[in-house]
Parts: sequence; C-alpha cells; structure tokens
Amino acid sequence: MIKEYIQTHQQRFLDELFDLLRIPSVSADSRHKNDVRKAAEYIVAKLNAAGADRVELCETKGHPIVFGKKIVDQSLPTVLVYGHYDVQPPDPLDLWSSPPFEPVIKDGKIFARGSCDDKGQVYMHIKAFEAMMKLNQLSCNIKFMIEGEEEVGSDNLGTFVKENKDKLKADVILISDTAMISLEHPSITVGLRGLSYLEVEVTGPNRDLHSGVYGGAVANPINVLSQMIASLHDDTGRVTIPGFYDSVISLSEDERKKLNEAPFDLNEYKKDLNIDDVRGEKGYTTLERTGIRPTLDVNGIWGGYTGEGAKTVLPSKASAKISMRLVPNQDSREISELFTKHFLSIAPKSVKVKVTLHHGGQPAVTPTNSKAFKAASDSFVEVWGKAPIPTRDGGSIPIVSLFKKELGLDTVLMGFGLDSDAIHSPNEHYGVKNFLSGIETIVTFYKHYSKQ
Amino acid sequence: MIKEYIQTHQQRFLDELFDLLRIPSVSADSRHKNDVRKAAEYIVAKLNAAGADRVELCETKGHPIVFGKKIVDQSLPTVLVYGHYDVQPPDPLDLWSSPPFEPVIKDGKIFARGSCDDKGQVYMHIKAFEAMMKLNQLSCNIKFMIEGEEEVGSDNLGTFVKENKDKLKADVILISDTAMISLEHPSITVGLRGLSYLEVEVTGPNRDLHSGVYGGAVANPINVLSQMIASLHDDTGRVTIPGFYDSVISLSEDERKKLNEAPFDLNEYKKDLNIDDVRGEKGYTTLERTGIRPTLDVNGIWGGYTGEGAKTVLPSKASAKISMRLVPNQDSREISELFTKHFLSIAPKSVKVKVTLHHGGQPAVTPTNSKAFKAASDSFVEVWGKAPIPTRDGGSIPIVSLFKKELGLDTVLMGFGLDSDAIHSPNEHYGVKNFLSGIETIVTFYKHYSKQ
Repeated sequence: MIKEYIQTHQQRFLDELFDLLRIPSVSADSRHKNDVRKAAEYIVAKLNAAGADRVELCETKGHPIVFGKKIVDQSLPTVLVYGHYDVQPPDPLDLWSSPPFEPVIKDGKIFARGSCDDKGQVYMHIKAFEAMMKLNQLSCNIKFMIEGEEEVGSDNLGTFVKENKDKLKADVILISDTAMISLEHPSITVGLRGLSYLEVEVTGPNRDLHSGVYGGAVANPINVLSQMIASLHDDTGRVTIPGFYDSVISLSEDERKKLNEAPFDLNEYKKDLNIDDVRGEKGYTTLERTGIRPTLDVNGIWGGYTGEGAKTVLPSKASAKISMRLVPNQDSREISELFTKHFLSIAPKSVKVKVTLHHGGQPAVTPTNSKAFKAASDSFVEVWGKAPIPTRDGGSIPIVSLFKKELGLDTVLMGFGLDSDAIHSPNEHYGVKNFLSGIETIVTFYKHYSKQ
Repeated sequence: MIKEYIQTHQQRFLDELFDLLRIPSVSADSRHKNDVRKAAEYIVAKLNAAGADRVELCETKGHPIVFGKKIVDQSLPTVLVYGHYDVQPPDPLDLWSSPPFEPVIKDGKIFARGSCDDKGQVYMHIKAFEAMMKLNQLSCNIKFMIEGEEEVGSDNLGTFVKENKDKLKADVILISDTAMISLEHPSITVGLRGLSYLEVEVTGPNRDLHSGVYGGAVANPINVLSQMIASLHDDTGRVTIPGFYDSVISLSEDERKKLNEAPFDLNEYKKDLNIDDVRGEKGYTTLERTGIRPTLDVNGIWGGYTGEGAKTVLPSKASAKISMRLVPNQDSREISELFTKHFLSIAPKSVKVKVTLHHGGQPAVTPTNSKAFKAASDSFVEVWGKAPIPTRDGGSIPIVSLFKKELGLDTVLMGFGLDSDAIHSPNEHYGVKNFLSGIETIVTFYKHYSKQ
C-alpha cells in the first residue's frame, strides 16, 4: 500500500523537493537571510498541507525554527523528527557541473546543494507523514522540529529546546542527516563525532610590506601561521595540543575488531578520491580514524596576494579556519579552550594572534538496545532486505547530545545518504532511489514502532 | 637656474604626474592590458614634448617598451635611463585611505599606486630632461628605456636588449627605482638582491570533502602545505633547501662592520611596524638580513573555505606563492630549480604537488669607483648637503645584471624613495620634496658627469 502510494506520487514528491532545493538557504551567508526564511516558510506550508495540526515558524535570534505536530492520541508514544532546511555555502561555484540551486537528475541522482544534506532527507519525513495521513496509517504521535542553523552550529537551538521542553515532549528523536554504507549495505549510525570550530588570525607588521625591503627581517604571518599549524600534529599524526586526548574513551580490542568488520575496501576508497595513499593517526585504520579518533583539520586558509600573477608582498595578516572533530567523552567547550590556550602559547613574539570561536558540538553515542532502534532496524530489513550495520560516523550533529541532556531523549540516526554524495562539496547529490526507499523505510519504521 | 625652473613649473610637473598616476597600469592583471598601453603612450607623448629626437613604442610579446633619445653629439658620453611605467596590483583595496588611482597630496606626500614605484621616479627623469633642454644645459647624450613589465619579472626585456644592442649603446645606466635612508641621510644603493618567484599547488582528494566524514583519514592539502612551508626554515631561521647557500658570497668582517654603520634604529623600526620583535636568520642584524642574506617568504596562500562563517570542508587543493630574495652570487634559475626539486621531494605520498615558475631576477652589485657613481655622489652633496651612504637594498631590479651581461654596462641606482613609502602596499606615497629635489639632483648629476 505504501509502495503504491509512493509510486503514484513520486513525480510530485520530486517536483516539490526541487522547489525547496531552488531556495538558496545558505545560513552562513548573511546575504541569503531572506532565502533561509523562504525555505522555512516552504517547510511550514508543506507540513500544513500534509496534515499537521498546527505548524509554527518560531523566531530565534538567528534563523527561525519550524515546529509542527500531529497528535493522534495523547496516550500513544511520540516521535520527534529533527532536521534542517539550511545548507552549506555552494562555493567553489566553478567546480559544479550544473548550478547548485537548479536541481537536475543525472544517472538517477538529484544534483543540488542540500539534495542530501539535509533538504532531501527532511523532505522524506514530510512525505512519509503525508502518506501515513492519507493512508490513515499513522498510529503514534509525531512532532517536527526543522531548524535553519545546523550548518552554522545550531547556535539558537539550545535556547529553544530549553524554553520549550513541554512542547517538545516525546519518546524518541528520529533524524535523517547521516549516511549509510551503500545501497547494498544499509547501516544505522550509532556514534557521532563532536566539533570545535575556530578561526585564527596572525598579524605581523601593521601593513603589507615589500618583501624585498623587509623580507627576512620581519616575521611573515603566512610563514608563521604555517609553522603554527604544522606544529599542531606530531610525526605520528597525533594532535599536539596538551590535554587533547585526556578525555577520549578508548574502545576495547573487541569493539575495535567489530568496527573494522564493516565492509570497507581501501583500494576502492583511494581510487574514488584519486589519492595514492591515505594519511592519518598512526596505529589506526581508516574506519577508526574517521569513527573513533578525534582529528584536527584546517578548513580554510588565506593571506597575502592570491590573484593572478606575482606580487612580492610581505602581508600584514594571515588567517585560517580550523576545526576539530571530537569523540566521546571530549567536551567541545573544553577542547576549544585547550586549542585557544595552546595556539596563543606557541605564537612567536614577533606576531600577534587572535583566536575566535565559531561553534562547537558535543560528540554522542546512541543506544542500540532501545525499542526505537529495533523498529528502525526492522524497517531496514523489511525494505532493504538486510539488517543494518551499526556504524560510527565522522560527522557531527550537535543536537544529539543536546537532546539527551535537555530532554532526556535518545536519538535514532536513520540516514539514507552515501559518503560519496559530496555533501559540503561541489556537485552534492542524492539518489532518487535513496529518497524514495527512504520514505518507505520511514513509514515502515512507524509501523514497527507503533506495533510494539 | 635649475632651482628656479623647477619652482616655476612645479605645479605643472605635479599635474602631469597625476595624469600618469590616474592610469591603472597594473601589469599583473590582464584586465588592465589597455591601461598599461595607455601609460606607455603617455610616456611617449611626454618624452616627445620634452624634446626627445624620436620616441618609439616598441612592441614585445607582452607590454610595450618606450624608447627615446636625444643625441647632442656622437662624441659625448651617453646615459641610458631605465625605469618602468607599470605598477603593482592595488589590493587589498579596502586598506587604502584614498583610491589608489586618484592621486592626492596629504602632508606633503603624493598618495597613489606607483607614486614612488616607479612612475614618480621615472617622471623626475623626464622633467629633468625637459629642464636641461629648455635651459640648454644638456651636455651629453641621453637615452630612455621605460618598460611595462618590471612588476611581473621583465620577461620580454631580455630579448629586447639582446636584439637592440646598437640602439642601446651607452656608457652608463641610470635608474631611480630604489630608496634612500631618509631625507637627512641620502644614500645610493650599491647592491640589490635577486629573486626567484614560484607558485605551488598541493592536491589531496579529487574533490572537496566533508571534514567530518573524511577528516583524519585523508591528507588535508592545507595541513600538508603548511607542514611543507614550515619545513623550509630551520630553528635558526635558515632556509633548508639543499644547496641554497652554496653560492652565497660571504662578506668580510670589515664589510659587515661598515654595512652596520648605516644609521638604523631598531626601536624606531619596530615601532613603525608595530611589532614586538623582529624575526630572521640567527647571527645577523636586520640590515644584514635584508641586505646581504638570501631569504624565503610566502607572498600569498589560499585554500578551502575563506568566506563568512564556518564550512566544514576538507578541501581538494591548497596553493601558495613563494619567493626567495637572492644575493650575489646566487643564480635565480638554479635556485628556482633547487626549490622545485626540494619541494617535490618533501611531499608525502598522499598528495600531488605542482610547482610553477613565475619569474626571477639575478642579484647585482654596482661599482662605487666609477665616473658615474662619483657624479651621482657629488650631485647629492650639492643638492642635499651630504655625501650619500652606499647601501645594500633588499629589493630586486633584474635589469641591473641583465645590462651588465648583455651590454657590459654598470648601473648607478640613484633612488629617491623612502622605505616607509609603502610601495607594493596600500597607501603607497612619495614625498613632493623627494620628487622635486630628485629632479634637481638628476640635473646636477648630468652637470658633474659631463664635466669630467
């Protein structure tokens, strides 16, 4: 019955998703403020149309949060669906083979910024809800909280959650904002890394100088920043910030063994990325490096002359955006402080250094023995023909630990993306099959979850 | 008589210079190709107006070279004046207090891109020539070669010089494209550093990746580039490229002592740049670091997300512009090769590295015992009331060694800029006094040079 409904309406589902994808709701870019709101309003309209009781556009200090619900019966369990309608900036634009906000289907995949992260995955839940309403199948309560600041650190969600504990009362959180291993190997994420994101600025002389006149005698902030960044890792790929690993919970040999049993082909991985070798912390496999180990990456760097040709400048400033992925039981605030203290301490006297916090998020582990997890697992078996493999993801969804702390709720991370979907990159895409089977899996989840 | 002429015409001199400064002749930027030509045509017109015999706009594969001459008598000595009408890019634009191509006088200084480097200094020679013609004082031959590619490595000047040896026949080269110590301490540059300028690109994965999904397992090209750049200097500030110092001619203790006798106040220097400390090769003073030691500076770096806010990207590429200042007897081509070989050799297997040569120039030393140097020295004594101090400059004018090699001619570097003129930086400026006294000094130079 649900299969049939999806088949009948799939073109409309895609058309509606495309309308949402056309809105450039880039939360990081203040020039897109109105577009972000437009995307929120679109979600409101579609939740209303699908049959939600009362959908609100909740204002925050930043971008608004969409809240909607359908209460079937107060005595039945309630699922709170979380997702986000904001997207990453699309640059570098010249690497997109089609414009990021003009969705197209190529080779069975929807190409557009946000197609997978997270508009496509959010929209599966709205259409699953519509189907259950139309087919009169919804047998538990459902709430939606779709925010617009996930890509910039969910700065205002904490306050919203704290101030609306009654409104958000539920039994479990359901989120589709992660990936599964492959279409052949469905999986459910059970661990997420946290995040500390900072920006650093190194200032040398008070103005750009001629590198011929001053070079060699005055600290060059690019050279100094490079040296400072280089020193953040030692020869074995470990982060050198004092105390960085202090709170990390080590997995047992058995847990590590299990983790490494997930299907993974290093040669395919290297081939896909066109790299001759992987690179990371010594003594850990690639799955461990991205799943259970904290890391430090420079996400952006700039300074001096970056235009065409050559300019012999010794610049006044150089900057970098640096983020760290955290694992249980590291604390994002503490790590940000350790970073700041250390980074300031390694600056030579010849420069001035400024460190600014962008945002952070706590790492999280979700339980695998809950009623909701079992329902999710069963729905994968029913739709995909295979039990999902529990995985640890490298990405961060700060909301998971926030929900646990503020609402006491566990989360099920039922994601349908693929690692190869190029989220946060040019040519982000999302499989049409993932989208449609995802809707079916979500409906099936509610069936199993309500039955128990 | 010359003093009077300058006083009478100084407003017109400045107006004409301002017209030249208004032309954005940025040779590095192909969008300014027509502006570069416009500046060349302006020089042609003004040399003609001043009384040159025959001024030509000589085409090259790049920007044209202006050649003009006045032959008074074939039996008299000939001075070849070299200069350049192209300018550095003006960015970062937001740091200019007035637009770079709208010259204004503030506190007795002309603010505009090129005011000092080198339009202002070139224009002194054209006006000195005009004055000598009008006052019937020119008693030797004079030739002008003003090029438009100095700021991008003078790529086509070598061919022009080789193909026009007869046309360029002269007894000495006169260039005003350097600085003097201060208005109270006139000086003449007797040594120039050479240059090797390269661009490097480090490629990790074939596309931008999500730093959460891949971070820690795949080489981040920004981190790797930072490490590679950091490794180019050791703890004592020495460049680590094998063979880098092999050809460097060390100065004797006596020569070093003499060099350090030049007036220099380290506290003033630090205060002017607002730095708490200088930084450079251990065992050398600031004057030695910029004058007689080779150096390596990163002139620009970029990679990943550099926009507003935060983006958790593990970028595919990171790039940098890197230049080295060379001293006698280093060879620019050899150093560029050593750099390339070394930089490729230190790349980890997990990335691909590309090195591109921008341009180079040979270091040079000019003689202090020539007739022309003595004439220059005497003209400073006459106009500035003090014998000029011989200095070694950090900057590079590749033409000097080219002239020596191809034409067998020595150069006199009679520069009137100041190190604080912010050439290559926002708010470049040039003292009105430097400009006007420079014209007087040049006329006086010809007087002494012809007399002998």
